This record gives sequence, structure tokens and C-alpha cells, in this order.
Amino acid sequence: MNYYSENDIRQIVADVLSRSGFNGAKGMEIPVEISARHVHLSKADKEALFGAGYTLTRKRDLSQPGQYLCEERVKLVTASGEIANVAVLGPERKQTQVELSLTDARILGLKPPIRLSGDLRNAADVMIIGPKGVITARGSVIVAKAHVHMTPEDARKYGVEHGRSVNIRIGTERSVTLNDVQVRVDKNFGLAVHIDYDEANAAQVSGGNIVGCLQKNG
Amino acid sequence: MNYYSENDIRQIVADVLSRSGFNGAKGMEIPVEISARHVHLSKADKEALFGAGYTLTRKRDLSQPGQYLCEERVKLVTASGEIANVAVLGPERKQTQVELSLTDARILGLKPPIRLSGDLRNAADVMIIGPKGVITARGSVIVAKAHVHMTPEDARKYGVEHGRSVNIRIGTERSVTLNDVQVRVDKNFGLAVHIDYDEANAAQVSGGNIVGCLQKNG
Repeated sequence: MNYYSENDIRQIVADVLSRSGFNGAKGMEIPVEISARHVHLSKADKEALFGAGYTLTRKRDLSQPGQYLCEERVKLVTASGEIANVAVLGPERKQTQVELSLTDARILGLKPPIRLSGDLRNAADVMIIGPKGVITARGSVIVAKAHVHMTPEDARKYGVEHGRSVNIRIGTERSVTLNDVQVRVDKNFGLAVHIDYDEANAAQVSGGNIVGCLQKNG
Repeated sequence: MNYYSENDIRQIVADVLSRSGFNGAKGMEIPVEISARHVHLSKADKEALFGAGYTLTRKRDLSQPGQYLCEERVKLVTASGEIANVAVLGPERKQTQVELSLTDARILGLKPPIRLSGDLRNAADVMIIGPKGVITARGSVIVAKAHVHMTPEDARKYGVEHGRSVNIRIGTERSVTLNDVQVRVDKNFGLAVHIDYDEANAAQVSGGNIVGCLQKNG
């Protein structure tokens, strides 16, 4: 039996924390990217908005391989308000999906759920207006849940796996930690944390070379 | 050398965890209040906007004693945009101060600093329009730094002091920790964490009975 001073106990606790994979304030750095409001369209909805046989025009590639920003823009409308000039992303998807910030959702009077892309459970409704038509996109509107894209190699390096939740600390002057960021692993992914403009503004991130620190939270 | 009871050791461990920035720690609960964009006016600016000798009309009291929301509204204008229907708070202050979110600042094309109320170093300029006049409020625009109001009794209870920075964890479904929240202590303060709408949206706080957990960070 040993007797320990308070300082000994503090050292022991800090050591256990450190060995447990807890990284304290520093963590492991990952680039942060801000996603503005945007729309993914199904083939049928694309044709309803832009015309039969219409092909979306690629403007520039996004950081995730195969994804691109289109030249086309649409307007979102509800009984409460409207937001014009909303970006369309390609390629087409199986289901139309509208990703807004909660600031946008307030303007439109919507209460969309916080969801990962592709998960449209309880998603909200919105009208989408294009140059050739109008659709009611039922069950399409979500607020994107913060997530981090990485390859299997990155996942091994960071000691995390697909579907795990981590904390991302953004160490700006207005430092914020996002406490439930989902890890998405795919061999084609580029390493990046994706947040929306509300999260970006809360952390005073205005784009360009900001990194977040990944901290395990489990 | 001291001998510690299990309870002493539990307290020490909790304190080490809290100071380490570990986000799983529960912390101490404090009500969260959201501050919308608003304006405080000097006597001279109030008269320029509303007329000589004008008295602001109290609409309702705010949580901090002596502060109140007025019936009057103003418009903010820059070369880049405008925001109408902005709240005026009373009573008058020595200096006119405009508190915006970064979302608002984007609309107006401004880059105001993150500041505690009353600290207008490098504050941005904006035009304010009232029913009887227009002023250019130079060096008036800030984004409010998140802060927590408490009495000296609360401060003792939480083990913090005026001017200290703490973390506030908001444990919503979209959990966020604000990592640099300033403690403001005054015997007249009501216990509350004040955040803006960007921080509220990032944490999916929409008002009503949300509490944050105070965690020591130093």
C-alpha cells in the first residue's frame, strides 16, 4: 500500500487520460471546409426544373471526388419566405436533398432535422423553383450533421473507424468544439471536416486553411 | 503528506478532467439565453435618430436588471446591404454600440471584432436610420463575445472569478462547447450564459430552458 499526495494523484489521472487516447486540447489536425446551402437533385426533379433531357453544367469540382458545383441555381420557397440563388451540386442522386443551415431554416419557417447526407427521415418539405418548372420536394430538407471524411489509411492513423463520433475542436479566437462529429471512411474521400455556416460563424471560420483538432470522445 | 478519502479523490479527478478540457465531464449547469442583434444608443445619437428630447419606450425588461427592450426599431445600412427592424435596448449608454452576429455582418459586408460589451476597440462602422434622422455610427459594431453573468455568490459556488475564461458545453442533440466564455461577476447580475444566434444555431438552441455546463479550462 502506498500513500499518494494530491499532486501524485493528479499525475496519475493525467497519465491514465493520456494512455486512454484522450488528447487534451491539442488533438490531431484536420482541414475544415464550410458547406453553404445547396441542393442535390434526382433525375426526375432536375428535368422538372430545367427541362426534359437537360444536362447540368459542371462549374468546378468539390473536395470529395466526383462531386461538383453546377452553374445552375434554384430558388427555395415556403409560405414563410424564400431564398434565391441556391447552388445545385452534381451528379444527380436517387433522391432530391436540400441542405440548409438553421439560419436558412428560420427564414423559411422550417424545422428540419440534423442529419447525415442521404438520411432523410423526417426531412422537411420545400418548393423548388427552376427556370422551366416548380416542384414540391417533400421530405427533402435537412441540416447537415457535421462529419469528417477520411480514407481507411487516415482512419488507422487517427485510431477511429467509420460511423464513430468524435469531437472536433476549432481553435480560432472564438474557439468552439463540435462534440458529435461523425467519421465517414471511404477510400475515395479527401481528408476534411465539413461544417455549415452556422458552425463556421460560431467558430469565426471564414474559409481558408483552418484546421480542427480531432479528439476522441468515447 | 495528506490522506485522502474516496470522495476527496473523486473531487480531484473531476477537477483534473474539467481543467483538461475533457468534454465528457458534466460540469455545472447554467441557463443559456440567446441575444438577437441589437443597438445601444448614446443620448446624442438617440436624439439624432428619434428627435430632440425623445424618450425611448420600454417594452419589456431583460434578464439583466435595469436593461430593457424598447418599442423603437432602427435600420442598419452599409454599401453592401441593410438589415431592418433592429431592436433598440435601453437605457442609453455613453457610447452607441451595435451588436451583430457574423451572419448579420456578412449581409452588411462588415468584419467586426469579437468583443465583450463596452469594448469597442477596432469596432466597425455602420449607418443607422431612424424615423427622424440618419447617423454614421463609427467604431460601433461588434460581435458579442460569449459570456456568463453571475453574482459573487454564484462565482464562489462555481469556483470562478470575474474575468476568467471558462468552457460552456451545450448538450443538445447538436452538442457544442464554447471554449472561451468570459465570466462577468456583479451583485446585480442574473445567472445566465449569453450567446448569439450563430452560436445558438450551431448548438441547435432555439430558446427555452436550455442549460449549458460550465467547465473550467485552465
